[in-house]
Amino acid sequence: MSMNAPVKREFSAIANAMKPSAIRLLLKVANQPDVISFGGGLPNPESFPIEDIRRIFEEQLARNGKKMLQYGATEGLDSLNVALAARLKEKEGINSEPTDIIQTAGSQEALYMLGKVFANPGEYVITEAPTYVGTISALKASGIKMVGVEMDHYGMRMDVLREKLKKYPNPKFIYVIPNFQNPSGITMSFERRKELLEIANERGLTVIEDDPYGALRFAGAHVPTLKSMDNDVVYLGTFSKVLSPGIRLGYVVGPHDVIEKLNIAKQAVDLATSSVSTYIAQAYVSGGYMDKQIPKIIDLYRQKRDLMIESFVNYFPGDVEYTRPNGGMFLWVTRKGANTDKMFEEAVKQKVLYVVGSAFYPDEDNHESMRLNFTFSSNENIVEGVKRLGKLFEATAK
Amino acid sequence: MSMNAPVKREFSAIANAMKPSAIRLLLKVANQPDVISFGGGLPNPESFPIEDIRRIFEEQLARNGKKMLQYGATEGLDSLNVALAARLKEKEGINSEPTDIIQTAGSQEALYMLGKVFANPGEYVITEAPTYVGTISALKASGIKMVGVEMDHYGMRMDVLREKLKKYPNPKFIYVIPNFQNPSGITMSFERRKELLEIANERGLTVIEDDPYGALRFAGAHVPTLKSMDNDVVYLGTFSKVLSPGIRLGYVVGPHDVIEKLNIAKQAVDLATSSVSTYIAQAYVSGGYMDKQIPKIIDLYRQKRDLMIESFVNYFPGDVEYTRPNGGMFLWVTRKGANTDKMFEEAVKQKVLYVVGSAFYPDEDNHESMRLNFTFSSNENIVEGVKRLGKLFEATAK
Repeated sequence: MSMNAPVKREFSAIANAMKPSAIRLLLKVANQPDVISFGGGLPNPESFPIEDIRRIFEEQLARNGKKMLQYGATEGLDSLNVALAARLKEKEGINSEPTDIIQTAGSQEALYMLGKVFANPGEYVITEAPTYVGTISALKASGIKMVGVEMDHYGMRMDVLREKLKKYPNPKFIYVIPNFQNPSGITMSFERRKELLEIANERGLTVIEDDPYGALRFAGAHVPTLKSMDNDVVYLGTFSKVLSPGIRLGYVVGPHDVIEKLNIAKQAVDLATSSVSTYIAQAYVSGGYMDKQIPKIIDLYRQKRDLMIESFVNYFPGDVEYTRPNGGMFLWVTRKGANTDKMFEEAVKQKVLYVVGSAFYPDEDNHESMRLNFTFSSNENIVEGVKRLGKLFEATAK
Repeated sequence: MSMNAPVKREFSAIANAMKPSAIRLLLKVANQPDVISFGGGLPNPESFPIEDIRRIFEEQLARNGKKMLQYGATEGLDSLNVALAARLKEKEGINSEPTDIIQTAGSQEALYMLGKVFANPGEYVITEAPTYVGTISALKASGIKMVGVEMDHYGMRMDVLREKLKKYPNPKFIYVIPNFQNPSGITMSFERRKELLEIANERGLTVIEDDPYGALRFAGAHVPTLKSMDNDVVYLGTFSKVLSPGIRLGYVVGPHDVIEKLNIAKQAVDLATSSVSTYIAQAYVSGGYMDKQIPKIIDLYRQKRDLMIESFVNYFPGDVEYTRPNGGMFLWVTRKGANTDKMFEEAVKQKVLYVVGSAFYPDEDNHESMRLNFTFSSNENIVEGVKRLGKLFEATAK
């Protein structure tokens, strides 16, 4: 058509307000040669059980091919929900029925849908500060406001939470990542978990427990999940860190009314999760592959965490602080008075990438920290990358 | 925790308004033994190229395993966008760059995100009436209103569209399924397509062309896609009907600003599409498997369409009308004065399922029709199912 008026596309208010995620942009730079990236939360490709997946796929395709390639149910593959309920009972003492579970396109879809079904635009929720940047973008995409609660080495500070609840008494939920938190690496203590549930129960508030890293404990004693302590908690798990993020498969375990709302939302968002992914995961859990693989991943990551911390000791100025997590994928590096946003441009020039700490704060400006992923890079690159960051810190010394 | 106040979960207004999709509910009944389902829009499992997929997966895993199991880019696999742009140019005369394309978790996610980025809650869009039930649920989930435009055998009626635009002059977009429409099976004529684009261009309106069935033409001449006639059109394609719906993979081809908004929305909704699915599809397209498979699917479905229409002739009362589509997956059956919603309960008892026509109307009550899928059932079940429906029509004769 030639004689047309220009198309006047007016996007929605939400679309105009949405910003590209800092991490997704980072992934593009990260693919350039010689760049050492501690940015994305990527598992190490060495942790992927490729040979197991080859065998599983071939067997499942031969046995269940016609179902594996067909539309699945919105709640996901029944036999996987059965396997997950049994595993959560055994490993975490969580009492759930298979019908209390819905499978999602990674935890990201779960986070997005939980925001959507719990909160109207303009309403607020409570999160840790800092918190997972993907949660911030998921909630912002529904126009939801976040109230951040400061953390210390035992997790979310309960005195601050009580204080915030005076000003914000009706949050739609309280969202926490109790194990090896993203980005801080901090694990919430048992005492803190009890207190959080007490506060929530006193007020009838919903707690959402995001637990992508719980299985990746390198050291220290297991701490009970919030969900095992209170079955009203909404629990999020994922296969991204213990199998493959490429299959996009997570799950939510929750009270029946929550799962039902998520199911209806998912019908609108994408109908169902990939059946190929759910069949692979089902065989991975039920065939004993997962129990065999997790210790290997832990060994690999523990060693990388140790190497990165050792490199901090060797190459960072003495006033740079960092967490020493017992598991997960991230170290949180802080220097009082630093501005890691300003440092970032120079870091790109020096070909070392991190995620700026400010990206993780839901409702405040804080530029003193950076998140470093220790799982993805080779050992050589961990040392070299920390060395580059160390020089950068030296160059910006106060 | 024992001494807790009951959790007071107040869901969002959207969550409280959302209804389970008629089709998703249907899928549960459809799995019962002896039930003949013409309900879901399921491809026939015989159409799945299982042996090709086995070979593709093994090759891709060996060659690209570490990328195939890792997080992918939000826009999807680059080489698949390259292959899609080339294919759309060759088959449809669509001029697009790989960067004009984003891969999505089936077309459903594309429909959901397009609503979200184009319209604020309470704003409206224009659709055919009837239209795809998944589009209705996707848009309703963002609080978007729909204005339906009546169809005839040449597609959306342009006189009615002009009339509606007087009352609703600023729709955020016009959504159409020009080829073998779901649910009606109707193909929009070339003249009608030209007129639609003229109307849109006069007013600067965005047109969204959903084309899941275009490749499945059994008879008649190809009609140019709207996108090939006007590159401002936003075009939706999917692998669900030409490879597998279980891999959940669709794509959007559109102007750069639209693709960018979708990309940012997708970062919030699920980060990226399954890399496993994108690698399978890339090899399926580029390896020539797709061109080999589509004629087989067409042969299978043409024969099933013919058998179902033949069965209508044999078993339906003379006052039952139906479309005779040249492709796709659906027949639209209408009886003046019938109420297919009321008939449905009896149909379940007789173990034959359809989707009630009322589910496809965006803004009116219309109970005279039903949608029948002819691709999924065995030939034996097509005859037997139509026979059962015929008896039902007879029993409710006026």
